[in-house]
Amino acid sequence: MKSTIGEAISITLFGESHGNGIGVLIDGLCPGITLDMDYINHQLTLRKPKGRISTARKESDEMNIVSGYFDDHTTGTPLCILMENSNTRSKDYSKTKDLMRPSHADYTANMKYLGFQDYRGGGHFSGRLTAPLVAAGSICNQILKKKGILIGSHLKQINNLVDDSFSQDEKELIQQIHEMNHAYFPVLNNKKQEEMIQLIEQHANDGDSVGGIIESTIINLPAGVGEPFFHSIESVLSQLIFSIPGVKGIEFGLGFDFVNHTGSEVNDTFYMDKEEVKTKTNNNGGINGGISNGMPITLKTVLKPTASIYKKQDTINFKSKEDTVLQIEGRHDPAIVHRARVVIDSVIAIGLLDLLTQRYGYLWMGEE
Amino acid sequence: MKSTIGEAISITLFGESHGNGIGVLIDGLCPGITLDMDYINHQLTLRKPKGRISTARKESDEMNIVSGYFDDHTTGTPLCILMENSNTRSKDYSKTKDLMRPSHADYTANMKYLGFQDYRGGGHFSGRLTAPLVAAGSICNQILKKKGILIGSHLKQINNLVDDSFSQDEKELIQQIHEMNHAYFPVLNNKKQEEMIQLIEQHANDGDSVGGIIESTIINLPAGVGEPFFHSIESVLSQLIFSIPGVKGIEFGLGFDFVNHTGSEVNDTFYMDKEEVKTKTNNNGGINGGISNGMPITLKTVLKPTASIYKKQDTINFKSKEDTVLQIEGRHDPAIVHRARVVIDSVIAIGLLDLLTQRYGYLWMGEE
Amino acid sequence: MKSTIGEAISITLFGESHGNGIGVLIDGLCPGITLDMDYINHQLTLRKPKGRISTARKESDEMNIVSGYFDDHTTGTPLCILMENSNTRSKDYSKTKDLMRPSHADYTANMKYLGFQDYRGGGHFSGRLTAPLVAAGSICNQILKKKGILIGSHLKQINNLVDDSFSQDEKELIQQIHEMNHAYFPVLNNKKQEEMIQLIEQHANDGDSVGGIIESTIINLPAGVGEPFFHSIESVLSQLIFSIPGVKGIEFGLGFDFVNHTGSEVNDTFYMDKEEVKTKTNNNGGINGGISNGMPITLKTVLKPTASIYKKQDTINFKSKEDTVLQIEGRHDPAIVHRARVVIDSVIAIGLLDLLTQRYGYLWMGEE
Amino acid sequence: MKSTIGEAISITLFGESHGNGIGVLIDGLCPGITLDMDYINHQLTLRKPKGRISTARKESDEMNIVSGYFDDHTTGTPLCILMENSNTRSKDYSKTKDLMRPSHADYTANMKYLGFQDYRGGGHFSGRLTAPLVAAGSICNQILKKKGILIGSHLKQINNLVDDSFSQDEKELIQQIHEMNHAYFPVLNNKKQEEMIQLIEQHANDGDSVGGIIESTIINLPAGVGEPFFHSIESVLSQLIFSIPGVKGIEFGLGFDFVNHTGSEVNDTFYMDKEEVKTKTNNNGGINGGISNGMPITLKTVLKPTASIYKKQDTINFKSKEDTVLQIEGRHDPAIVHRARVVIDSVIAIGLLDLLTQRYGYLWMGEE
Repeated sequence: MKSTIGEAISITLFGESHGNGIGVLIDGLCPGITLDMDYINHQLTLRKPKGRISTARKESDEMNIVSGYFDDHTTGTPLCILMENSNTRSKDYSKTKDLMRPSHADYTANMKYLGFQDYRGGGHFSGRLTAPLVAAGSICNQILKKKGILIGSHLKQINNLVDDSFSQDEKELIQQIHEMNHAYFPVLNNKKQEEMIQLIEQHANDGDSVGGIIESTIINLPAGVGEPFFHSIESVLSQLIFSIPGVKGIEFGLGFDFVNHTGSEVNDTFYMDKEEVKTKTNNNGGINGGISNGMPITLKTVLKPTASIYKKQDTINFKSKEDTVLQIEGRHDPAIVHRARVVIDSVIAIGLLDLLTQRYGYLWMGEE
Repeated sequence: MKSTIGEAISITLFGESHGNGIGVLIDGLCPGITLDMDYINHQLTLRKPKGRISTARKESDEMNIVSGYFDDHTTGTPLCILMENSNTRSKDYSKTKDLMRPSHADYTANMKYLGFQDYRGGGHFSGRLTAPLVAAGSICNQILKKKGILIGSHLKQINNLVDDSFSQDEKELIQQIHEMNHAYFPVLNNKKQEEMIQLIEQHANDGDSVGGIIESTIINLPAGVGEPFFHSIESVLSQLIFSIPGVKGIEFGLGFDFVNHTGSEVNDTFYMDKEEVKTKTNNNGGINGGISNGMPITLKTVLKPTASIYKKQDTINFKSKEDTVLQIEGRHDPAIVHRARVVIDSVIAIGLLDLLTQRYGYLWMGEE
Repeated sequence: MKSTIGEAISITLFGESHGNGIGVLIDGLCPGITLDMDYINHQLTLRKPKGRISTARKESDEMNIVSGYFDDHTTGTPLCILMENSNTRSKDYSKTKDLMRPSHADYTANMKYLGFQDYRGGGHFSGRLTAPLVAAGSICNQILKKKGILIGSHLKQINNLVDDSFSQDEKELIQQIHEMNHAYFPVLNNKKQEEMIQLIEQHANDGDSVGGIIESTIINLPAGVGEPFFHSIESVLSQLIFSIPGVKGIEFGLGFDFVNHTGSEVNDTFYMDKEEVKTKTNNNGGINGGISNGMPITLKTVLKPTASIYKKQDTINFKSKEDTVLQIEGRHDPAIVHRARVVIDSVIAIGLLDLLTQRYGYLWMGEE
Repeated sequence: MKSTIGEAISITLFGESHGNGIGVLIDGLCPGITLDMDYINHQLTLRKPKGRISTARKESDEMNIVSGYFDDHTTGTPLCILMENSNTRSKDYSKTKDLMRPSHADYTANMKYLGFQDYRGGGHFSGRLTAPLVAAGSICNQILKKKGILIGSHLKQINNLVDDSFSQDEKELIQQIHEMNHAYFPVLNNKKQEEMIQLIEQHANDGDSVGGIIESTIINLPAGVGEPFFHSIESVLSQLIFSIPGVKGIEFGLGFDFVNHTGSEVNDTFYMDKEEVKTKTNNNGGINGGISNGMPITLKTVLKPTASIYKKQDTINFKSKEDTVLQIEGRHDPAIVHRARVVIDSVIAIGLLDLLTQRYGYLWMGEE
């Protein structure tokens, strides 16, 4: 189904950037779960624009829970969350309606929707739809956390600025995940964090933009989760992550660096750590044959530079079918990689909760 | 659904490497299509092991079409293709049944299937299941080809050996795709091809293995195909490609290299090429907002080195839960990257035909 | 998926009777369709309570289109329709919260949702959720009508009062369908209509309720629509119709009366009516092997008497697990069969549009 | 998906009556289940033609388990069951290929599949495909039985011959279910059984056919199973049952007889039977709001008379588009209602196991 994903837990996104509202529908939640509103709002805050490195459009992202929640508990029926679009300046878009913004979905939307799409602010393609996605994912994340499963991400690289790596030590790693989950601009190395922010500001001043690489890790996922072939952990997470605007690549474990090694160099050999089965290395990122092996899941995602830049760009007029020049107005982000982080964490939570629920049934979520 | 993928065209894989048979079920094909058996068998041949750079296990991969095909035409009902497992040497596996092969699915299968999985030759996780996947994908590919949509891939990199790039010139590119589609070891640069084969042989002699990067391109896909969010072209293709054993990363267009550039450097500006809308560069790999823009779709996939190596490796005995050492026997590939190429082409065809059929209906396939 | 139905066109219902709102999400509509608001509101009016034969709770059922609609056209993205719950008197329910209303979903909801369901006014099980269902179905119906496919229903029977049958003459039948589609209490025979209304009023005065049989017909559906087995027209329509609260039986064509006949008596023999293939009789209700044969589709649906009656009834207290006596308060319908008619017409439209779209693709909807 | 049904447990049917084989694919079974081959074969025997009241075509229906089963246990991967078509006399059909058998799927298949369907013996529409359906359903039934959930059916009516009703006493009912599950021609009243068989033989001698009503009951299904709306027990079971060739009506509990009663007459009042919640009557057939209430599920299904009769019938020649007369040859059943019984029991088992698995997860099946 076009705008729905998931089997046991299904998520449907709807809405347009400058329409009446945006929202998400979550089906398959167990009855009796009290939503941790502070946590969900905290996650939404991580996605919000803030400071000079983000768009000036500010939205409250206030959640209106339409259904599926009663007396502070999930009811087990579809949970519908609505968010209003309040701070819209739709006129910014009408002037340039026929000018196809390069690397944006303007042209493809025109071709797919025959010109009937809501073009204002990117319409259904707007990054704004990641707000309800984060709301849905944070609910899933809350459930996973209660089961001890932790998800964390940091900005691994922007241009030539490379952050430190997550620690191999479990205690330290948990501490790092905790820190990243509370940082608006999540970088392990403080110095790199400052440099990255400066770099973004510098490009913002130039009317330009940057992308970046986000590294994510999931710990305490039990071994045996995932399916062979089409619903492998890699398949499920990549389908979800590639639905985030701007994502252009994903790799698990060693990823593309595998090409530089032989099997004997990178095979993850097993050993017994007391009662527990572990691997000495984790080049496979915690996944063998599409299924979790109990080691941390590790993956990296690349986001392209934000397509909306203030520099003049060549483009076409879709209506007159002529070459022209575009000067984008409106309010845009010189970088979204830091805001995208929590979106990635959220969709990871959606995918994992779905796989776990298929295995254990939906009552499992609520079990103490 | 666990072993099924697709909406309008659905594919279900089944079987185990040393069981009674393996197969695939394809639902959603238009009635009246004559299968091009020569083409499908040619594609299957590209997947077969051959020469010193592949496993010594030889299977005929003969297709037994059980249903959905009558009087040399598809009937429109589910098409079931069965392949026998004939050249099995199951005893090779019983000895090492409890020894978890590093970086293989042995341990995760044990955890997922509670020890009831068919462990012989990797069971359901065997690369052998890609044979019916190629059969299914080749049927889809045949349909796409008739519509003018061409898919081609080459081995971009093995270790430090890097092949040339696909041509930017359309005529040349079509010629290259044609050549690659007929080469068992598909490399654009002949010299690199020889070096790569030598490299694999050398590692084979060492009892070691290598992985590699495959670059794929799709041309003539009309603009407007794909969905925003969960069924974007990137989401659909990555879900399919990550279901291929050994795949650990995927990137579209510039992919991970986007991190090194600013928006103004990599935005693909539009221009009119006579009546046609084109982009000057194609850093987005033909996809904006998850939807095709009419430019070639480009992607790269990385496969890790084959996990089965003949070198001694540390591991555990799953039953006794003790550390031990494993010396793999059986027949294995020192590299599968060249054989995986046609599997990638096949699943790309499955994904694109599904998206096209959702848009145009299934009768579209058969229209002249 | 739990609250979603449909393949090419999917419908998701959400909301609770006394919650923040109820709504429906429709995915898969072609871009460029102008909604006929007068028609949709007219259909919603047919579902609304009216006069002494209905509940006194009056809701505006005003549609708030949250997404997927722009500049008076569908955009092709998910269409979300919201309706507020305004005229709620939730206190009516809190007193009897633990008293399980006989033949209602109170007890089963408690068991399924572990006591966390919204119990007010039936919560998610309320007939009120058929309002967004009618909204969604009317959009589908509008599309079918433009293709010449007409759906009509009348009240065939209430207690021993039996209405006339639909005409066998096509012109007359079209006229009858038109009349029924404009009647709030749709009965072909005027005298029977009056008697039925009197009967309902009489039972209303007694604090009792009645059910009834609705007969539906669909004309101009082309031959060849539907699937063998699980997605036969009968399977698709029955799944949809049984989702309407109170429906307890469905039959196609002769239905249960088939038991009284032999094959030679009821086989529908084919003949050529000029260029057209027709059957002399239509005992199969226009469906052979699950697929339309071009004759009118005919079906009958039975609704049980409304479960909410004002007479005292034995029941249990769910909390104390004791026998007790219940006197229902609140506002209830002595009959819903006349209001259910348009719900049936609506879900039929949903099912048929889905089957047609699978065949012809979603762009077909918008073709002139 | 066209030929697939189910969410947690999915079933895909494939094959044609005179093709290479027919089969079924079951996905979602828990690993570690030992199939009770005697039971499954017993169920298949109940479906087989036998004696003068059935077709003379005899098939072994021998199951070839292609995948998903190893060392006498399910592996948890897709289970594919194949059955050969051996006793085919395809020439019987080629002569009458263009003559559309009345009330058969010949004409509709031609329209749907554009003339490419396998017309021999009904092709994909053949009742023969219910053999793999019974195999799949019997596996589900075996699992339900182990959980104490029993399904039983009897022939309630053929023409004016009406069988007794299932007992209201639980012990007696269990005994009756047991007897029916072992009877080839399942009728509670021995005298009626003889009369029914005589009636069928008599119509067989006339070259005619009969249909019938099957009554089914399910006991020990826990309360709380099923979904509101689209996946109610009624929706799920009716979708499955209407996929059985010849079924034209279904009713739950009192069904169509509800029309003759008022709410106060038929509401099922609750009471405490010691610790257990029960209803005094069971007019709702154990289902309230689409969800089980713990009382026996009861339903009735009507099958039309077998369409294949030996009497001469008017029809058309599809190719020449002319009226003509048809004299059916081949081997056919004068009644299939007794053979259809086990198909109904089987699809009920499929539907219930799916709903239960969605709730409890797939590992639940194997729990001791």
